[in-house]
Amino acid sequence: MTTKTNRADFEAVWPSLVKDLSESASQYGIPATALKWFQDGLNANTPGGKLNRGLSVPDTARELLSTPLTDEQFKHLCTLGWMTELLQAFFLVADDMMDSSITRRGEPCWYRRPGVGMIAINDSFLLEASIYTLLKKHFRSHPAYVDMIELFHEVSFQTELGQLCDLLTAPEDNVDLSNFSLEKFTFIVIYKTAYYSFYLPVALALHYLQLATPNNLKQAHDILIPLGEYFQAQDDYLDVYGNPEQIGKIGTDIQDNKCSWVINQALKRCNPDQRKILDESYGRKDAALEAKVKEVFKELNIEKVYRDFEEEQVNKIRGLITSVDGSEGLKKGVFESFLAKIYKRDK
Amino acid sequence: MTTKTNRADFEAVWPSLVKDLSESASQYGIPATALKWFQDGLNANTPGGKLNRGLSVPDTARELLSTPLTDEQFKHLCTLGWMTELLQAFFLVADDMMDSSITRRGEPCWYRRPGVGMIAINDSFLLEASIYTLLKKHFRSHPAYVDMIELFHEVSFQTELGQLCDLLTAPEDNVDLSNFSLEKFTFIVIYKTAYYSFYLPVALALHYLQLATPNNLKQAHDILIPLGEYFQAQDDYLDVYGNPEQIGKIGTDIQDNKCSWVINQALKRCNPDQRKILDESYGRKDAALEAKVKEVFKELNIEKVYRDFEEEQVNKIRGLITSVDGSEGLKKGVFESFLAKIYKRDK
Repeated sequence: MTTKTNRADFEAVWPSLVKDLSESASQYGIPATALKWFQDGLNANTPGGKLNRGLSVPDTARELLSTPLTDEQFKHLCTLGWMTELLQAFFLVADDMMDSSITRRGEPCWYRRPGVGMIAINDSFLLEASIYTLLKKHFRSHPAYVDMIELFHEVSFQTELGQLCDLLTAPEDNVDLSNFSLEKFTFIVIYKTAYYSFYLPVALALHYLQLATPNNLKQAHDILIPLGEYFQAQDDYLDVYGNPEQIGKIGTDIQDNKCSWVINQALKRCNPDQRKILDESYGRKDAALEAKVKEVFKELNIEKVYRDFEEEQVNKIRGLITSVDGSEGLKKGVFESFLAKIYKRDK
Repeated sequence: MTTKTNRADFEAVWPSLVKDLSESASQYGIPATALKWFQDGLNANTPGGKLNRGLSVPDTARELLSTPLTDEQFKHLCTLGWMTELLQAFFLVADDMMDSSITRRGEPCWYRRPGVGMIAINDSFLLEASIYTLLKKHFRSHPAYVDMIELFHEVSFQTELGQLCDLLTAPEDNVDLSNFSLEKFTFIVIYKTAYYSFYLPVALALHYLQLATPNNLKQAHDILIPLGEYFQAQDDYLDVYGNPEQIGKIGTDIQDNKCSWVINQALKRCNPDQRKILDESYGRKDAALEAKVKEVFKELNIEKVYRDFEEEQVNKIRGLITSVDGSEGLKKGVFESFLAKIYKRDK
């Protein structure tokens, strides 16, 4: 078992990146109030989450290398990790506005803080621009510099297309379950979440270590995308069936009209009477209607459907991991660690 | 005098770019409703403006070359031109939301169209992502590919910092003229407007023709940034003093609390009584108060201040153009054309 990246060591890199970005803005002669605002936006929106995506970059590199990371490698890999967190921050600041969310990570959403409001749109742009500013500063002479830029571009485009599909499929103010389908669910999950959360960190580590051969990238892709699908189905399952004390939040997907794995499985299996109840009760801000939806889920035994799905999906992923071709430097351990973090989690 | 790019010829390139972008999205298996939305967002927000920035790219290349453009060069240069229009579309969709604007180019702003609303944030992201998708498709093997990517990145970051400073300096809901200064005005103009509107198209043409030596880029920068400052001062002047029938809109800068060239010149020159009137009347949605502001401007003879500024700035720019060092392929004509389009315009 490889040593995992210490969260505090990873976090210790962040202030130096804020310093880099501040210097980039300062070199243009930016007025002091605007510089402070830029820094506050970086610090309020980038650290503070679970950091799973960011930590995955150095963690993956550790699995790939047989020797310990040098200090320089560690700093570089954490910088790439923080870029994945900047990409996520860019998306979350905007998603919270588009979803009219109230809180994020236990604090008011950025756009809801005093004096912020719609300026948050431009702040999200600056979070994204920070990725490329850091990439240029730290990786301009890296052989995979262009590949890393193109990776961030493509994953951003994919995530935005996934987000678009999600926004169009499940608007909070217009419930229409005939919009939903398992095909749309799968597109949304893969594009809105799996690419940037699972594929991106591993692909970055491969590029950094110059192990990003077409075969290695394809193998990583073909394992991590199904892993991301499994993760999101599990997330959706826990939203309905998880213990709020363990998952740390009260599920709101039913009332929020989310195009989740659970509702799509129910729609596939329900009879006309159950469908009528779902049509009349899903996506309403009403606890009694939410309870009716949950009753239909119970009748359809969605818990069992989930457990069967989980076993099948995990077996498929394990099979893919077992067959990993390590001849170009890829290691099974990369994917085993990911799967171990996710399988049978209850929070 | 070089032949200018025909607007219709430039516009004829656009549908092929929408097709490229649609194919990129389709290859991911995007559902039909989301694909149509993406296309609608591209078509509603990118063409339809004056296209000055986009046309500048082939126009600049014509000035730089002594031979006519080949069909392939023309297509490439128009593609780069459309990318500058995509960058502008990305900013304008978001700016209209941040400014609560009502109309853009004679139509309701994109976010105000039925069913759009906050989805427009994600639509703006997709306009930006489209730049890099097209850049990769058409210029992946161009020797200046990385330079062009980095140029778009840096100009985006600069524009976003300029927009941030503008939003913080002149919030519509909190008038405080002590926030204003000519230094902030200059920062906002250069960063929010001049880089992407003037420097970007010329730098792209130089990169495309492989004439982007450090000396040529620096010369272009050192002429085009003052030209952009002059253009914005003129724009601000016309907002107050222009003939609405000629400029095609009724100026709203005074009521909108804009940190414009005009108010900053007035603040520099006013006595305490005049300052009191400006403090009490600027930035209010009230025609009578707007008239009081204009009265102060008249007392301070801002029209004369503007004419003097214009002569001085234009003489400075002409001097820089005269001294252009053409030894690495740069041509004075590039800048003479820009200046000719702007000098003494009344719309």
